[in-house]
Amino acid sequence: MNVSMIRYILFQIMRIEGVLMLLPCLVAAYYRESVGVYYISIAAALLIIGFVGCLFKPKNNIVYLKEGCISTALSWIIMSIFGCLPFCISGEIPSFTDALFETVSGFTTTGASILNDIESLSRTALMWRSFTHWVGGMGVLVFLLAVIPMSGGSNINLMRAESPGPSVGKLVPKLRYTARILYLIYFAMTVIETILLMCGGVGLYESLTIAFGTAGTGGFAILNTSFVTYTPYIQWVTAVFMMLFAVNFNAYYYVIMRQFRKAALMEEVRWFFLIVVASTGVIFINILKMYKTAFEALTHAFFQVTSIMSTTGFGSTDFDLWPTPSKFILVLLMFIGACAGSTGGGIKVSRIVVLMKTIKKEIYSYIHPKIVRKVSMDGHPVEHDVIRSINVYMATYIAIFAVSMFIVSFNGYDLITTFTAVTATINNIGPGLSLVGPTCNYSFLSGLTKYTLIFDMLAGRLELFPMLMLFQPVLIKDLFKTHK
Amino acid sequence: MNVSMIRYILFQIMRIEGVLMLLPCLVAAYYRESVGVYYISIAAALLIIGFVGCLFKPKNNIVYLKEGCISTALSWIIMSIFGCLPFCISGEIPSFTDALFETVSGFTTTGASILNDIESLSRTALMWRSFTHWVGGMGVLVFLLAVIPMSGGSNINLMRAESPGPSVGKLVPKLRYTARILYLIYFAMTVIETILLMCGGVGLYESLTIAFGTAGTGGFAILNTSFVTYTPYIQWVTAVFMMLFAVNFNAYYYVIMRQFRKAALMEEVRWFFLIVVASTGVIFINILKMYKTAFEALTHAFFQVTSIMSTTGFGSTDFDLWPTPSKFILVLLMFIGACAGSTGGGIKVSRIVVLMKTIKKEIYSYIHPKIVRKVSMDGHPVEHDVIRSINVYMATYIAIFAVSMFIVSFNGYDLITTFTAVTATINNIGPGLSLVGPTCNYSFLSGLTKYTLIFDMLAGRLELFPMLMLFQPVLIKDLFKTHK
Repeated sequence: MNVSMIRYILFQIMRIEGVLMLLPCLVAAYYRESVGVYYISIAAALLIIGFVGCLFKPKNNIVYLKEGCISTALSWIIMSIFGCLPFCISGEIPSFTDALFETVSGFTTTGASILNDIESLSRTALMWRSFTHWVGGMGVLVFLLAVIPMSGGSNINLMRAESPGPSVGKLVPKLRYTARILYLIYFAMTVIETILLMCGGVGLYESLTIAFGTAGTGGFAILNTSFVTYTPYIQWVTAVFMMLFAVNFNAYYYVIMRQFRKAALMEEVRWFFLIVVASTGVIFINILKMYKTAFEALTHAFFQVTSIMSTTGFGSTDFDLWPTPSKFILVLLMFIGACAGSTGGGIKVSRIVVLMKTIKKEIYSYIHPKIVRKVSMDGHPVEHDVIRSINVYMATYIAIFAVSMFIVSFNGYDLITTFTAVTATINNIGPGLSLVGPTCNYSFLSGLTKYTLIFDMLAGRLELFPMLMLFQPVLIKDLFKTHK
Repeated sequence: MNVSMIRYILFQIMRIEGVLMLLPCLVAAYYRESVGVYYISIAAALLIIGFVGCLFKPKNNIVYLKEGCISTALSWIIMSIFGCLPFCISGEIPSFTDALFETVSGFTTTGASILNDIESLSRTALMWRSFTHWVGGMGVLVFLLAVIPMSGGSNINLMRAESPGPSVGKLVPKLRYTARILYLIYFAMTVIETILLMCGGVGLYESLTIAFGTAGTGGFAILNTSFVTYTPYIQWVTAVFMMLFAVNFNAYYYVIMRQFRKAALMEEVRWFFLIVVASTGVIFINILKMYKTAFEALTHAFFQVTSIMSTTGFGSTDFDLWPTPSKFILVLLMFIGACAGSTGGGIKVSRIVVLMKTIKKEIYSYIHPKIVRKVSMDGHPVEHDVIRSINVYMATYIAIFAVSMFIVSFNGYDLITTFTAVTATINNIGPGLSLVGPTCNYSFLSGLTKYTLIFDMLAGRLELFPMLMLFQPVLIKDLFKTHK
């Protein structure tokens, strides 16, 4: 295994995190919060370690899938550990486990919180907390690819390990430019949302935190009541953007390139919008009687559908009080999740669509046994290998889910809490139902449970396999072997 | 489509059901219950219709997979409709929907009941109710194959549509003899269990009903309290037999043929026993404090594990009161289910084992991308087509599950009730948790929900696809086309 290259990537990641941590430092300087001193020290430490570490360039910079997975998993773990230090050292979140949970929840764009009183945190801490969503949404390794030249075509293995969805497509022949285009779209959309929120009377600081939470489909809010107290305008703007950030970014690239036909023909995106509209419709009718006006019911239905399906997890109302059909739809949306190639989590719409098509094909083959049909998406046949990997993904997903639920069940909470705690973390959503519902938080869980959910959040964000690789004894041995 | 052959099979099934219904008639004669008159009339009607219908032999008796699926699905529906008539006409279960639910629950070996007071039924009715389990356990079409000569090798399509598990193996080259051997083993084991139960002081009538419920892995008991009041001896005998009937019957064939090595090497069976032992162990420790003696806790742990994993559903205690880890294990066992080629339901151990092996293979391929490994079972590589069909099965299973839950959720009951009602019916278990827990029943559900669960029970018993075929407009049109 190319250990020196993995080490090099990890030092690069530390350097990038050092730069990123300067944003909360700026906030601290502006609001004159003394807590900023912790952020600037850790940022400085990260920059120095990263800079010195990067001086030792690896001789061989080829990254195979194995190295891609391992460096992705380790990058996210290291990023989270250093990212949680300011919370921890400043005493704003005294327990290391809690601080790590909150930071992993941030980077993985989950938005599950252990904070009982969010508003008691400093503005500096809240900005860093929301900013982790934005950083995690697009992925840091993709950022690495965008700014640092890497030789060989093997760097797609890094991107493959970090990007959400069943297959990674290159928009343009050079992966580096693909990564740059994606980041540009991401950045532009975040700016537009911030401006629209400010037009609704929300200050720059608050607008930025909301936009970060939306763009990364994260879900950390800076108010204890999440989105309950915001005006309908703010709720609608956020809901629309939650929906937009859950769309496959390739669609935006096509739109920018004026290939409207190609964008309109993306099956995954069409299914995504269909599911959003249908779910909003059914929930709207189901909850109509619970609210004063039809508009209010529609706002909550649309907001929660986009919030859950994009796996953001903002709450405009306590949906744990909704009737069973609406709650069931939300739980179903938690599993379906966003489009591949978006910043959202979950199983992904494209995987579900391909699976449904394999069922249709199977039934067809029973009726016409002699005609061989292939499953196709966007007019092209789906490679056998993609179908196979989707199936393995599903099996792995169920296995990790079952093991996690088994561990969490020893907390002794009811089955709904146990089930939705795992659902909300492995799908990177945030709030679940019952004791981890939208008005509650994850602080009361045991340490073992929190670490299990931390694993689930990382596994969900990194498409399961990179995290599983860390449990392969062969690879661990390789990692600690003397330099090759 | 070979409609005349399908019609012929359906008339054969009616004739067989007419013969089977003579057993409750005998019980009525012995106990001098007037209700027997309904049973003898319907048995007579079935025999006459079946006999006359079978006079018109089809010219072409080739059964393709399409015809196999359609005739299996229709056979089971017709069998259930005629089977529920005595309950209905005699007024013992006045509502047709309820009577149909109970009969489908019987034939599919589910054991979910709508009866509030089981003991108020006549002995005749209770015998027929338990006997449906025994009939459904092995399958009537398999019985048809065993007794009626069918030309061509195409009759395996009938067996494939009815038998539980991912692939149907022939034990001996002639399918007819395979079916006979299976029925012989089934019959012998039922007799042995009945004798052992009678040794425990239970009368012939009661022993027979218990043995029928165990052999079919059904779960209908003739007492309102299910197995709570039976002695530990009866509970242990039943538990052991529930376990034995959930084992792949091929294992018994090998044992009879003195191929002990082959039997011992069956991976599915070894995994099955491993899961039974491990689950019993964990639950035993988890519930130890709830019972007076360790022996009592062990009895309940072992009884419920075998009852749920074999998908029988007998209850020795109210496991809805057990702590969350134990309940979670039981829910997990509901999904795993029994071995393929047994009388039990669920997803089947062999499918789970193959899926776990594909995960292991995937991780291996990440580490050693150049080495191609195949998934193997019992020392033989698993055909690509079997893996594909397992994956499609899983996707279909999840899809049917989600749609069913969506419909049931409109009843407005809590999520646990909604979830476990579908779980307990599609996996052919019987009792779920919460409102459909072991001390409750399904009578309170709405008509639409009952029909949804009836579909789920049939879909679960017939491995999903035969029931889905009935919803294909092309096939329905074919079915009503004039004789080809």
